[in-house]
Amino acid sequence: MDRLIDLIEKFNNRTVVGLDTRITYIPQFILKEAISKFQDEEEAISYAIIRFNKEIIDAIKDIVPAIKLQMACYEAFGVGGIKALRATAKYAKQNGMYVIFDGKRNDIGSSMEFYSKAYLSTTTLFDKPYSPFCCDSLTVNLYLGSDTLRAVLEDCMLYDKTIFVLLKTSNPSSNEIQNIKDENGEEIFLKVAKICESFGEKTIGKYGYQKIGAVVGATQKEELKLLRKKLKSTFFLVPGYGAQGANALDVSYAFEEGKGAIINNSRQILCAWQQKNYSEKDFANASRDAAIAMRDEINKYI
Amino acid sequence: MDRLIDLIEKFNNRTVVGLDTRITYIPQFILKEAISKFQDEEEAISYAIIRFNKEIIDAIKDIVPAIKLQMACYEAFGVGGIKALRATAKYAKQNGMYVIFDGKRNDIGSSMEFYSKAYLSTTTLFDKPYSPFCCDSLTVNLYLGSDTLRAVLEDCMLYDKTIFVLLKTSNPSSNEIQNIKDENGEEIFLKVAKICESFGEKTIGKYGYQKIGAVVGATQKEELKLLRKKLKSTFFLVPGYGAQGANALDVSYAFEEGKGAIINNSRQILCAWQQKNYSEKDFANASRDAAIAMRDEINKYI
Repeated sequence: MDRLIDLIEKFNNRTVVGLDTRITYIPQFILKEAISKFQDEEEAISYAIIRFNKEIIDAIKDIVPAIKLQMACYEAFGVGGIKALRATAKYAKQNGMYVIFDGKRNDIGSSMEFYSKAYLSTTTLFDKPYSPFCCDSLTVNLYLGSDTLRAVLEDCMLYDKTIFVLLKTSNPSSNEIQNIKDENGEEIFLKVAKICESFGEKTIGKYGYQKIGAVVGATQKEELKLLRKKLKSTFFLVPGYGAQGANALDVSYAFEEGKGAIINNSRQILCAWQQKNYSEKDFANASRDAAIAMRDEINKYI
Repeated sequence: MDRLIDLIEKFNNRTVVGLDTRITYIPQFILKEAISKFQDEEEAISYAIIRFNKEIIDAIKDIVPAIKLQMACYEAFGVGGIKALRATAKYAKQNGMYVIFDGKRNDIGSSMEFYSKAYLSTTTLFDKPYSPFCCDSLTVNLYLGSDTLRAVLEDCMLYDKTIFVLLKTSNPSSNEIQNIKDENGEEIFLKVAKICESFGEKTIGKYGYQKIGAVVGATQKEELKLLRKKLKSTFFLVPGYGAQGANALDVSYAFEEGKGAIINNSRQILCAWQQKNYSEKDFANASRDAAIAMRDEINKYI
């Protein structure tokens, strides 16, 4: 987590911008330009997403430490979407940002190794060094148990990458499995947390945090407080702020003395231009203004 | 599940070939041809995977009902891998096979809708009908609860698709979360099964099975027996046969009177040419022979 925390400290900014770009988030003038340039619809949307994302990155790169890419939004546009995912990640990295792929990947060990090859390691392909996507971190689901962690941990160490494991998610039905209590009254999300802690203890960096972070939704106030208290060396990626309903006070429980978490926001930042005081050509500046406002709002409670 | 079961009945074959193609599975003559044709390594591997997969499909399409594509193996080759994933799925569909994407996707509702757009539905893109990948089915992880199902169920109905939810996986650490007992002694995989059953009950087709199937590993004999007994209208996708250790007797517990499941095998089919009685040019025939042997071995216990 050291590179991420370096950037957070540098900018005094505890937020990550979720570039979960959807068609409805992109201004019409970009979409029109895209479809006039490309015959193929998938190439057009790929161009539009890349252009939108790059301009947002240009507008926030000196104030925001990280971006998070919701992979579903890119997979929904097939090969064109994956091209946009790769191009966005590469551009953000070139501009010094920390890049988190939110793919919630999970599988048995031998398959998980291929996700690790895709997102975390550098291998060779026909004897040349090969790293398909430039990302720093991947979100992971641990329903299959520690095999999933074991398969990525070595690559995290070798290539200075991190993962964020889903503990307690921000959605309404998250209780159905995550909050089931075992025979001793301990909830499932705490069992997952224990696996992560024990696997991560040898990966602690200069700020005192492991390379295995946790996803904890800001909409889950009680669990967020409990997990912050219990997991001293686990860094949190916190969704749920803004459109999903959590505010700056809610997310303040993710921090301990201002440290240990980063708060995601997507829609409020990407769609800021849709408010009445902006024109669509001003979309990137609108995002910058929204990112500054969010940074300051969160810092108020630190 | 009706289209899948139609094919199983037609071929009297209860197996699915896992096209989890890795470089080491592809004969050298294809890899050499690929790198001589393409300057770019990623284009070369994409070509090699597509050629290997298409020849396997040609060799098995008149005897095997379905293929399963482990998405990790394709994502590991970036945009080139995704091109190979799409081309393989399209070719298999054109040849009448049922295509299962093994991506174990999961997310909150609003993001899961994008996975549904990617893999299960037909939407529009710049006013043209758009379906990024030609697949029939997707594997899904339910750690986030029923929100994940809700987001895909309508598309499954509208576009005649299915999903397979992870209940009890085939890997060594699957017990760590999936077999935790709740306060009433009921295990987590059974809680997940109940959610699937109640959501799927209105989707039962002509053979008596829901559109929400289940992944149950053949290496988990006790759970497989229990689930088969409990879930009368749930169709099982069963990994774990062959290289992972389960045999034809083990997988026989997935069936009820020969119905209700399909058994996956990847390595033993794709790497059959590496046995001493085949040359590498014979790789597709070797796969056909292995697929016939597996079909017959499983049918012995029916």
